[in-house]
Amino acid sequence: MTFMAKLAAAWQHNDSLICVGLDPDLARLPAQLPKTAAGILEFNCAIIDATADLVCAYKPQIAYFAACGAEDALAKTIAYIQQQHPRIPVILDAKRGDIGSTAEQYAQEAFVRYAADAVTINPYMGYDSAEPFLRHADKGVIILCRTSNPGAADYQDLDIDGGKLYEKVAREVAQRWNSHGNCLLVMGATWPEQVAQVRGLVGSMPLLVPGVGAQGGDVAALVRAGRTADGTGLVINSSRAILYASSGPDFAAAAREATWQLRAEVNRCRRD
Amino acid sequence: MTFMAKLAAAWQHNDSLICVGLDPDLARLPAQLPKTAAGILEFNCAIIDATADLVCAYKPQIAYFAACGAEDALAKTIAYIQQQHPRIPVILDAKRGDIGSTAEQYAQEAFVRYAADAVTINPYMGYDSAEPFLRHADKGVIILCRTSNPGAADYQDLDIDGGKLYEKVAREVAQRWNSHGNCLLVMGATWPEQVAQVRGLVGSMPLLVPGVGAQGGDVAALVRAGRTADGTGLVINSSRAILYASSGPDFAAAAREATWQLRAEVNRCRRD
Repeated sequence: MTFMAKLAAAWQHNDSLICVGLDPDLARLPAQLPKTAAGILEFNCAIIDATADLVCAYKPQIAYFAACGAEDALAKTIAYIQQQHPRIPVILDAKRGDIGSTAEQYAQEAFVRYAADAVTINPYMGYDSAEPFLRHADKGVIILCRTSNPGAADYQDLDIDGGKLYEKVAREVAQRWNSHGNCLLVMGATWPEQVAQVRGLVGSMPLLVPGVGAQGGDVAALVRAGRTADGTGLVINSSRAILYASSGPDFAAAAREATWQLRAEVNRCRRD
Repeated sequence: MTFMAKLAAAWQHNDSLICVGLDPDLARLPAQLPKTAAGILEFNCAIIDATADLVCAYKPQIAYFAACGAEDALAKTIAYIQQQHPRIPVILDAKRGDIGSTAEQYAQEAFVRYAADAVTINPYMGYDSAEPFLRHADKGVIILCRTSNPGAADYQDLDIDGGKLYEKVAREVAQRWNSHGNCLLVMGATWPEQVAQVRGLVGSMPLLVPGVGAQGGDVAALVRAGRTADGTGLVINSSRAILYASSGPDFAAAAREATWQLRAEVNRCRRD
């Protein structure tokens, strides 16, 4: 099944636009877990089992695994989702971007080595740096557009051609990069006005939206700005506010409760 | 010793502006080597021993290791350089870029896990995505500016504020990001005019220049455009044209010869 079909099915089946970001910070693992790659894997599996009926995707952030040499725990986390919860697509958050021959290696990393359903990439190097990902028509390719961090304004908001750089990215992705229908855009939850504007530029293309929870985005404003006509079109990511809802032995139950609350809050605004 | 001091010393000691890019493609390893992580490590060490008196830096490209799960071979390659050829700085080519908390993990990956002397990063997400790297004052932080690939023009050449986006990046890096004096810029060898222009904007800041060799950049034009007053200021990278100069058992000798020729060609233009 393609990433897009898997995502659409998970939206419906779990009645959820929520993505849980798997950012396993060794320094913040619950006290009862070892501060090792094995501890990371145990943590991830507990979070996944506690939330798999409430989410439309999981998004492991590769940096947290790479920092401590836990690539094997990343591979096992993705395999665990695919074996235990095969309806839920996996987005590898890697934000790769390089010349074509190198991008082919990164596509191999994401889609073959880790068998992720989708990957995030950076558009700064242009179309030929994205094409080795885009040609995997069954996989999702999620391009940074307007990110959630304060520094996003430094370059993404610059005025060009009578618009902003991020608008140019959104238009080009919709018009050129999306020839296989497998593109999504990253739009930070912290900027609902820009989400609304990009929604107007890209039709029903799904938007991956980080920045609710720890980064403080306004959920109601975001959902109204970004939803499509059928009340979907968004993959709303929360990482730290879910993963670290409790640092005690009840961490998985607390993660479930935080995911449940966020799903309910989003669903209240989806169809009003 | 800081990256900048190590680079300046290597420029002098080896009378060389050449960087060998370590992009070990399993499909292109010499026939006598196994197509495994052990084969990659053996290949890298042979290339390094054959060229260490001719270069100012090595630049392993992490994608080639990540694609096949050879992180251990990457760590051992860098450790080999630092033990056997400690004068030569190591640039980890990773082009990372993410929000601050994630960028801290990537800085840990580059500077602690792999103990690289410098890393390449992507500026699209702005200053706060770079700061976790920049604060490592002893390390080099090499920011993409105008890259060597055809798609570089898609966004980097867009007109903003009366200039191009890549000029804005060059100016901001020189004026703001370089407060610790540890920044460099990536400027593709395929665009000597832009190299000259950026040289004018950033004083003597070193430029990492990929795109000679397999990508076809003009060496003489590049060196005249990018050198500083003392005939340095450039880290001219060649990967495939050196690594795969021969696919036979003489691959290391052929790599040495290709490096020698490129160094000579560059040095003819450095001080004329």
